[in-house]
Amino acid sequence: MANEIPDIVIGRLPVYLRALVRMAEDEDKITTSSHELGQRLGISSAQIRKDLSHFGEFGKQGTGYHINYLIEQLRQILHLDREWPVALIGAGSLGRALANYHGFRHRGFRIAWIFDNDPAKIGQVMGGLIVQPMAELAETIDRHAVQVAILAVPAAAAQEISDLLVQAGIRAILNYAPININVPSGIQVRYSDPVLQMQRMTYYLA
Amino acid sequence: MANEIPDIVIGRLPVYLRALVRMAEDEDKITTSSHELGQRLGISSAQIRKDLSHFGEFGKQGTGYHINYLIEQLRQILHLDREWPVALIGAGSLGRALANYHGFRHRGFRIAWIFDNDPAKIGQVMGGLIVQPMAELAETIDRHAVQVAILAVPAAAAQEISDLLVQAGIRAILNYAPININVPSGIQVRYSDPVLQMQRMTYYLA
Repeated sequence: MANEIPDIVIGRLPVYLRALVRMAEDEDKITTSSHELGQRLGISSAQIRKDLSHFGEFGKQGTGYHINYLIEQLRQILHLDREWPVALIGAGSLGRALANYHGFRHRGFRIAWIFDNDPAKIGQVMGGLIVQPMAELAETIDRHAVQVAILAVPAAAAQEISDLLVQAGIRAILNYAPININVPSGIQVRYSDPVLQMQRMTYYLA
Repeated sequence: MANEIPDIVIGRLPVYLRALVRMAEDEDKITTSSHELGQRLGISSAQIRKDLSHFGEFGKQGTGYHINYLIEQLRQILHLDREWPVALIGAGSLGRALANYHGFRHRGFRIAWIFDNDPAKIGQVMGGLIVQPMAELAETIDRHAVQVAILAVPAAAAQEISDLLVQAGIRAILNYAPININVPSGIQVRYSDPVLQMQRMTYYLA
């Protein structure tokens, strides 16, 4: 059953997908192997085959994987065979960079709204969107059945806004605020804090 | 021995450190317990005790952890009892946001240089730093013995610049380019791609 697959396996699927799309679109490759994919990603070919075997039989002994077919399958598995509208909360310098980031498109996401509570930012245009007041947040999420949000607010505001988001119907939050947030079970949260990543690396430096 | 500790354990130490600093600085707490810390982080208290036991005996039965002492120990373990100067490569909208991000300070890092190859960006001021030409990169890294770099360049340029960085002496790279890069063994790489995180969550959404 889908819910028995370890989350660490799920976490590798987007990495495979990203590499496969690069092979198909930038290198015009038609087929690949778990060996080739593994070499690019620094992951063993056995691990890749095992991960994919949770979901079906995608490759053939000898010919390997048909890249476009595997891309299509991974997109279905990850529910990327649609475009998820995303609510971005926070129109500071990080919010602005995210609003202008072109990497969401064609990968399943589109930032559709930006919210902030700073009167100086409300009404500004970022990435082609007008910054909306926080007072509009709940109704917008509810009306459009938005499920995915990006939190780019200061740490002190993150929990309160996260509560608002969940109450309004958000089910997945990418949190850029450097603080852990508590959400009800069943709500997805992922974190992005560059300092955590860097601190994990300096452990290994003399 | 230090190098036998699983990297997943190392990856949790910065999360513990971040929560402890918040307790000490924002909440004026003096002591905590693995239970309290675990509740905040959604990690079991047993896991926290096990992770920390790799490095010593930091808590006492009954009184728990002295927060400032544990902070100090974690900073030593992660080599954050110093400030790492960081070279930022890429002065686009992400690079600009990173240059202006105040979250590095007091957490062990300081962006000390920004490089770009775009003549329109070279000479601009970002986060108080003047954008330097890429031609200066290798000499700067070598002269100042810089070990940590942040890569905020387009995917197509990431591998080439990563090779340059490693050759110049960089030993840890936080890569924002949405592509896996290959580095020699012993060089640390961590990734930050918001789309990967979001795709990992949509798997769980209906």
